Formats: sequence, structure tokens, C-alpha cells
Amino acid sequence: MSELGDALRLAPSDTGWTGELSNDWAIGEAVNGGLLMALATTATARSSEQAGGHVGPLSFSGVFLSPGAPGRVDLEPQILRVGRSMTSAQVTVSQPVDGAPVERLRALLTLGDLDRYVEPVLKTVAAPEIPPPDKCVSARGAPPSSLTQSGFLKRFDARMDPATIGWATGEPSGDGEMRGWLRLADGAEIDAIGLLLVLDSFPPVSFDLGSVGWVPTVEFTGYVRGKPAPGWLQLRLRTEHVAGGLLNEDAQVWDSTGRLVAHSRQLASARFRALVE
Amino acid sequence: MSELGDALRLAPSDTGWTGELSNDWAIGEAVNGGLLMALATTATARSSEQAGGHVGPLSFSGVFLSPGAPGRVDLEPQILRVGRSMTSAQVTVSQPVDGAPVERLRALLTLGDLDRYVEPVLKTVAAPEIPPPDKCVSARGAPPSSLTQSGFLKRFDARMDPATIGWATGEPSGDGEMRGWLRLADGAEIDAIGLLLVLDSFPPVSFDLGSVGWVPTVEFTGYVRGKPAPGWLQLRLRTEHVAGGLLNEDAQVWDSTGRLVAHSRQLASARFRALVE
Repeated sequence: MSELGDALRLAPSDTGWTGELSNDWAIGEAVNGGLLMALATTATARSSEQAGGHVGPLSFSGVFLSPGAPGRVDLEPQILRVGRSMTSAQVTVSQPVDGAPVERLRALLTLGDLDRYVEPVLKTVAAPEIPPPDKCVSARGAPPSSLTQSGFLKRFDARMDPATIGWATGEPSGDGEMRGWLRLADGAEIDAIGLLLVLDSFPPVSFDLGSVGWVPTVEFTGYVRGKPAPGWLQLRLRTEHVAGGLLNEDAQVWDSTGRLVAHSRQLASARFRALVE
Repeated sequence: MSELGDALRLAPSDTGWTGELSNDWAIGEAVNGGLLMALATTATARSSEQAGGHVGPLSFSGVFLSPGAPGRVDLEPQILRVGRSMTSAQVTVSQPVDGAPVERLRALLTLGDLDRYVEPVLKTVAAPEIPPPDKCVSARGAPPSSLTQSGFLKRFDARMDPATIGWATGEPSGDGEMRGWLRLADGAEIDAIGLLLVLDSFPPVSFDLGSVGWVPTVEFTGYVRGKPAPGWLQLRLRTEHVAGGLLNEDAQVWDSTGRLVAHSRQLASARFRALVE
């Protein structure tokens, strides 16, 4: 089984589904939020299937309540509506702390048949032209030293466009943009649910604006627009408004055929060097 | 009291708050989703205040489960976490149908002190240059004839950039963009919660791509980035991917001082003339 498949393994429980969070997917002390989103979506799709609903993740919107830690995780989906073409659901993600559940993430999902929303394409946005993966910079050497020990970074083969990696050597461009390529380090292909993880896998765009330290997500909404073809995924992260330490981070993901397969926006808080010094 | 203030009036109920949906805010048969979002946010902010939490709407993410109809509406907020700088909450919006509650909207919110996230601005996006309101086209004459009787349109003074109004005379530009100005028809000013209504108040961007009929929202996420100054609000709506009848619609709102005060993305489904004919 692939590393990601292993991390998303779930067993039925009294209230829904249960799984295990591993340090392998942590950044610093916290398990990556994208992995929590992919787990929550996996659990919700299974509950939806049991209820006669849809299984493809069309939309995911979540608020992050506390950081995930290695150990048992409980997922409790609630199917709100099974419609003809879409199913709506809510899911809570919690972990037992001293015997009591502590909520990590609560999310609302829309599920449907992803293949139904692929053609015809009336408008889209093309992937930016960037150097090929072998001319890009591995992200493993890029992040601040405090994060280099993170298991999360080892799960991916991420290659950053050299034009958007200045922040790694203390020279952020100030543009607030990240571009590059991504695939899983173990060679496994990424499926539709995996795209939710991918959308939150790149270094935060605020690094390119001079932010320091962790950039916690307040709210995240991602839309999956199609199943990704095998191969490298191309990513672009941008922001349009950074004020008072809050910013939006918009991510786009194209598959190896050049098709936009997912996009997202998150609201995140960041500390900026210019404000700290 | 202003028309909007009147529409957002709530009374305490056994399970939260109750209000009244009016035909005055309907488009066709359905009460506008933006009004439901503003109502849900009003109720959640009041419950948060009672729980010692924050009251300013930072983020709103909701899934629409069924169309709102004129009549009683019940709002049931649940405060998930009161943090130092932010409060997280969930809210359900339902209406009694034959004595049983039917859910219209479920949403997750983040509340905080909006004034805290205004300065410094490290990056932003300027409002596009468009003709002033008196050189723009009133939206009341623009929509398809089936919608001209809608109460909703009478609540606003909306002025569309002539360059993005071709669809009203059967000549959509195909760009998928709407630009213009907005204020309330009765002259009342719009506050932070009102921005959630504003984000969903313009004709859908899909009209500019040749869509016909109603464009139901599947999921909507809006971020309020500051309290709006009095006066005209400027709007721009765009999309980046329209495929298989699903599209994202991204809205931006600037206040009369030129500051970006809100932005949103929604996933919506549309029927396109090119596909219908």
C-alpha cells in the first residue's frame, strides 16, 4: 500500500470512522491540515456511499479548531441531503485527549460524480509556463531550518520554480506567489481525494512576502474539478489581500494533461518579519 | 429602520433565533441566498456575543440544501470554540414545512475583531477602472424578463459597467466577468454583515458566458476583510473554470475609499444556451 493510502486507512467505529495520525505527516508538532481534510473526505465519502449518496469530492469547506497530533483520530460524518446529482454532508474530526474528544476540524462537503463535470469546458485558466521538474528546486532544502525535520516534507517530491524560491535564502520576492511541481515521494498516483492534501502541501505563499514561522489555516475551501491524470501535478499559489496579519491563499492544481483539476482558497494568519523586527 | 435592517430582525427562540423571510428579497420563487447568509451571520454573531465570543464576520462557508421561501425562518447557531482572537461557529438555517423543519443552509463561521486585520496592508488588489455610477447601466432593466418582477432587484441600486452588460441584450461577451457599483435602494449604508449579501447580489457571471435561467449556489465561501466605508461599493465577478455546467464565481468588493473589504468564491451550477440548443 502507498504511504498516503496507509495514512487514509479507516475502520468503522461506534460514531463513524476511526484512523491513526502519524508523525510522518507532521510539520513541526502538528499533523498537516491537508491530511486531516483528505481523511475527513474519505470518511464522508464512505458514509455517503452507505447512505446511497455520491462519493466524488466536489467541495470541501472547513474551519480548523485545534492542531492535529499523532495518535487516534475519530471522524463523524453526517449526511445532510442526498440529491439527484449531489450529496451534502458535514463531518467532525476529533482526537481523544485525556479521554475526552477534542475537535480538530469541522467541515461541510458536497459530493457528486466528478466525471459529469469535466466537459464541455467553456472557460478555464492555463497552467503558467515554468521550468520542467528537473530544472526546478527541491522543496526539501528550501524551508526554514525549523521545519526541515518534518515528516510531511519527506512524503512528497516537490519542485519549486527557481523564480519563486528566493525566500528560502532570505530574499522573498514580495510578489506573494509560489509555483512548482508535486508528486508523492513513493511514486503512488494522487486521486481526487488526494487533491485536497495537495492544495495545502506547498510552502505558504506568505513566505514569499517575508512571513516567519507557522501559518495556521483559519478556513479552507477547496473545489475538485476533475480526477487527475497520472504524473506530475503543477501548482500555483497566490494571494490578493494581505492585511493585519491575515491573508487569503489561493491554490490551483493542473494535472499532467494541463487540465485544472482543483482550486482552493484559504484564510490564514501569518507573522511578518517586517512587523516583528 | 432600513429595509435590510428590517429583513435581518431576529427574536430569541427555544433553539436559537427566529426571523421572517419576505418576498421582497426573493428572486423568482426563492429568497436570495445572500440574505440567508446575512441572517445566519447575524444570528451567529449574537449567540457568540452571549457566549463571550467575537462578533465580526471574518469567514462564512455554507452549503445550500434547499431554496428559502417567504415565511418563518429558524436559525440555530452552535459556538464551537471561543479563542483569544477568533471564535468558530456553526449555524443551521431551516424553515418549518408542514410542521417539520426543512434545512435551507448550513454554514461554518469564523468571527473576530475586524478592525484588527486592516493595517498594515502588505499586498492588495486595486479596483478596476470603470465608468462612474451615473455612466453605468441600472441592473433593473438588465436581467432576463423572467426575473424582472423579483423583489430582490428593487432592494438595490446596482449599476453595471456597460462593457459587461452585453448578455442583457443577447450578446454575452464570453469573458465571464461582471463589473459595477452597488448600494441599497433605500439609501441605508451597508455594514460588515451586509457584505455577505452584497457578495451574492450581482447577476451571475455565467450570464456573460451565455447561461440561461437560475444559477443555484452549491457552496459559498466569503471573507470579510474590513468594515466598509459609507457610499457606493464597487464589485467585480469573475470565473476561472467552467466545465460540465459547474463554475466557480469569484467576487471582490471595494468600498468608496478603494479598499478591498470582502471577497468570495462560490461553486454554482448553470445551464448554458450553447448546450441547451
